[in-house]
Amino acid sequence: MSPQPASLDRLFHALADPARRTMLERLTGGPASVSELAQPLAMSLPAVVQHLAVLEASGLVRSQKVGRVRTCQIEAGSLQRAEQWINERRTQWERRLDRLGDYLAQQLKDEKEGKLP
Amino acid sequence: MSPQPASLDRLFHALADPARRTMLERLTGGPASVSELAQPLAMSLPAVVQHLAVLEASGLVRSQKVGRVRTCQIEAGSLQRAEQWINERRTQWERRLDRLGDYLAQQLKDEKEGKLP
Repeated sequence: MSPQPASLDRLFHALADPARRTMLERLTGGPASVSELAQPLAMSLPAVVQHLAVLEASGLVRSQKVGRVRTCQIEAGSLQRAEQWINERRTQWERRLDRLGDYLAQQLKDEKEGKLP
Repeated sequence: MSPQPASLDRLFHALADPARRTMLERLTGGPASVSELAQPLAMSLPAVVQHLAVLEASGLVRSQKVGRVRTCQIEAGSLQRAEQWINERRTQWERRLDRLGDYLAQQLKDEKEGKLP
């Protein structure tokens, strides 16, 4: 089991929605207000606020209200945590394939040299 | 918008569940039967089969039935697609921070050299 299953649940759940990914893509270009985030999305402002709440709960985004404007910013550390989980699994699998390849190459060599029956 | 939003939806949704991540972790060690995948999980076999269906629909796992045994295997390409999406966003954000750092360093230099008012 992963050390922070609940947290990874929220991270991947937050990434599993196209509107939330569009908001994240916008935020990688720099901080933005809620209305700026809403602009390319064909949905109501309350719906955008709800998606923002999911992003904030996952730790992918944080926001700060100054006066009447709420400004949102990406949290690269959370993106990195999700990326790292996937990367570790992929690397482990690829190492396994490499070992399998080495083993098969050795078998072939032994066969050629008459070491195998 | 991403080129394959539906596909990324399914990928991240599949990763958002601790039981499905446990199944993936088991599979990074090598192919496994459905009962081997079920073994560490405190759930019924039909529940495991349902999770497996989500993993297969996302493209993260493929399975093959030989005789009475269904053997499952990880699909590294799908893991890589999810990882790449996150990595591109994180890199873009970090580049932005670097540019901001360069700009601020230049401002500070200009200020010290009396180029700024």
